[in-house]
Amino acid sequence: MTELTHGGDWAGFQQEFGTRALDYSSNISPLGLPESVRAAVIASLERADRYPDPLCRELRRALSRHHGVPEDRIVCGNGAADIIARTALGLRPKRALLTAPTFSEYEQSLRQAGCDCEHFTLVRETNFAVTEEILERIGPGTELVMLCEPNNPTGVTTERALLLRILARCRDVGAYLVIDECFNEFLDEPERHTLLGELAENDNLILIKAFTKCYAMAGLRLGYALCGSKELADRVYGAGQPWAVSTPAQEAGIAALGETAYITDMRRVISAQRRSMTEALKELGCDVIPGEANYLLFACPERKLCIRLRQKGVLLRDCSNYPGLGAGWYRCAVRGQEENTAFLRALKEVLTNG
Amino acid sequence: MTELTHGGDWAGFQQEFGTRALDYSSNISPLGLPESVRAAVIASLERADRYPDPLCRELRRALSRHHGVPEDRIVCGNGAADIIARTALGLRPKRALLTAPTFSEYEQSLRQAGCDCEHFTLVRETNFAVTEEILERIGPGTELVMLCEPNNPTGVTTERALLLRILARCRDVGAYLVIDECFNEFLDEPERHTLLGELAENDNLILIKAFTKCYAMAGLRLGYALCGSKELADRVYGAGQPWAVSTPAQEAGIAALGETAYITDMRRVISAQRRSMTEALKELGCDVIPGEANYLLFACPERKLCIRLRQKGVLLRDCSNYPGLGAGWYRCAVRGQEENTAFLRALKEVLTNG
Repeated sequence: MTELTHGGDWAGFQQEFGTRALDYSSNISPLGLPESVRAAVIASLERADRYPDPLCRELRRALSRHHGVPEDRIVCGNGAADIIARTALGLRPKRALLTAPTFSEYEQSLRQAGCDCEHFTLVRETNFAVTEEILERIGPGTELVMLCEPNNPTGVTTERALLLRILARCRDVGAYLVIDECFNEFLDEPERHTLLGELAENDNLILIKAFTKCYAMAGLRLGYALCGSKELADRVYGAGQPWAVSTPAQEAGIAALGETAYITDMRRVISAQRRSMTEALKELGCDVIPGEANYLLFACPERKLCIRLRQKGVLLRDCSNYPGLGAGWYRCAVRGQEENTAFLRALKEVLTNG
Repeated sequence: MTELTHGGDWAGFQQEFGTRALDYSSNISPLGLPESVRAAVIASLERADRYPDPLCRELRRALSRHHGVPEDRIVCGNGAADIIARTALGLRPKRALLTAPTFSEYEQSLRQAGCDCEHFTLVRETNFAVTEEILERIGPGTELVMLCEPNNPTGVTTERALLLRILARCRDVGAYLVIDECFNEFLDEPERHTLLGELAENDNLILIKAFTKCYAMAGLRLGYALCGSKELADRVYGAGQPWAVSTPAQEAGIAALGETAYITDMRRVISAQRRSMTEALKELGCDVIPGEANYLLFACPERKLCIRLRQKGVLLRDCSNYPGLGAGWYRCAVRGQEENTAFLRALKEVLTNG
């Protein structure tokens, strides 16, 4: 099997380190699986002998109420990764523009669908933010622009005004704009950043969302797309298998949407911890990018940080293989205070003991 | 969303008919979810906040012991449908040979991967069996041959001697042979039909298996491929997303492999019921194909059988849209005695009341 470069290979790691292992390589709500979600999964087992609803009718109805988007513009998938793959296969763009760095699954899925990928390189000097220079890169021949808001692995968002100009530019040249908003819920003001309100007027827009991260249900797999038109939704849906979303995942999603206090609590924890972790990382001499999500990108001179942290039972995401980054760049999760303290202690030991 | 042509749209049907609905359109063990599988899913929720093991290490280890196939030749997926799609995308054949009729996902996945599909037409006169004429259709330029054993929707198997000749012919012309053995466990003598023993010597062979049907866990989604070489497994694995198999599904699979008595019981029920249902269908004037699995293909003069059964709360698979079949062909599940009696009663009412 291929060696994994993503974060979150918890299974392999835990086999080695047991319960004391700290996973700072994947970015999941530290509050754990909501109790109502757990109960919904158990209740769903009564129907586990049947095929799941291929159309995810009840879940899409619940999402429609939650987001104010018509049901026929919503597509559910086996995690956001399934939605990304369906989008690429369903739209089959020939040329796409992606930022560098960003989540590597976009390019992998697009290439698998036969698409050439160009990169808009983000630079340290502007905190890896998307700048208006990107507008010049979107021209006739650009068939799809893929953004991640907040971006992974930087945690940086694009100014709303610029996002709207990118959207207009895409519409002008006949390109789709696909925005992965999987980490939107971790922002201090998620509603200020989402392009949800633009869906009704833009039939070239797709927003990708996930339950995985903000409801701590990564093991259950559930993501979805909100599309600017029914036709777009049909194409994304048609590019995947009919029974992609398991019955437990469908029921988990419906239950999760009722967890409003959970999300508020989670956001409060992350917001406070993001600030204190940023300070702590800076005190350790790291170059910290001012991310706004539940993870932080930082650089430090120690080139073997992942290996040395791993020896201490801490899993960190090495970002050296991201196009646009390089050796010495790392991404860490932002979790609860207790875990973060343990993580920072381990990091300090590595960085101060040469 | 696209109108569904597959069987098993239980969710939509049940919304309409409630608990008295009978699903004879999908083919799942009538014994229900094994208790150990249920318990394993519930226990797995402790780790649902983490990403699933992308390599399915423990499950592949268990499958390796179960089948005697090395772990590095096993790929797990989100149901057999995910494995079919990965196989098509991973091998990217330019030309494939399929039987007609057969399960429609093969052609859909192959076409999505840019493959031209040719059909070897099976005919009523030989009970829709694969005959040795297929050998002439496998020539230079054939890059993949896809078989389903027992075939869906016919339930018919190919003679072992002929399967081996097809395998040799594929090897000679440099074609992959992919056999979907998802319904193998429902045969009276599964070991006589599987090509499991040929894997070690044939690096062009892939067998597709599923937990979905024989362990009644269609809602949990779990399928896998057994490959003739590690290289083949790597290509199939690499064509999908890393976290395709949920944590509950991985744990369910491990538990299911311990359910040997369940499988024996299930096979005994199906074997007896298949015989009595075949007789009952014949008595009702249906032309029944001598299938060997947990479903039966039959023809009858009533062209609106599905619609009329649906009005009685019975879901049946209309097979008129299968290439190689046509109007008047239907597939029904074989389930437990009580349900089958209710199904046959409804069928009799429709067929005898004009």
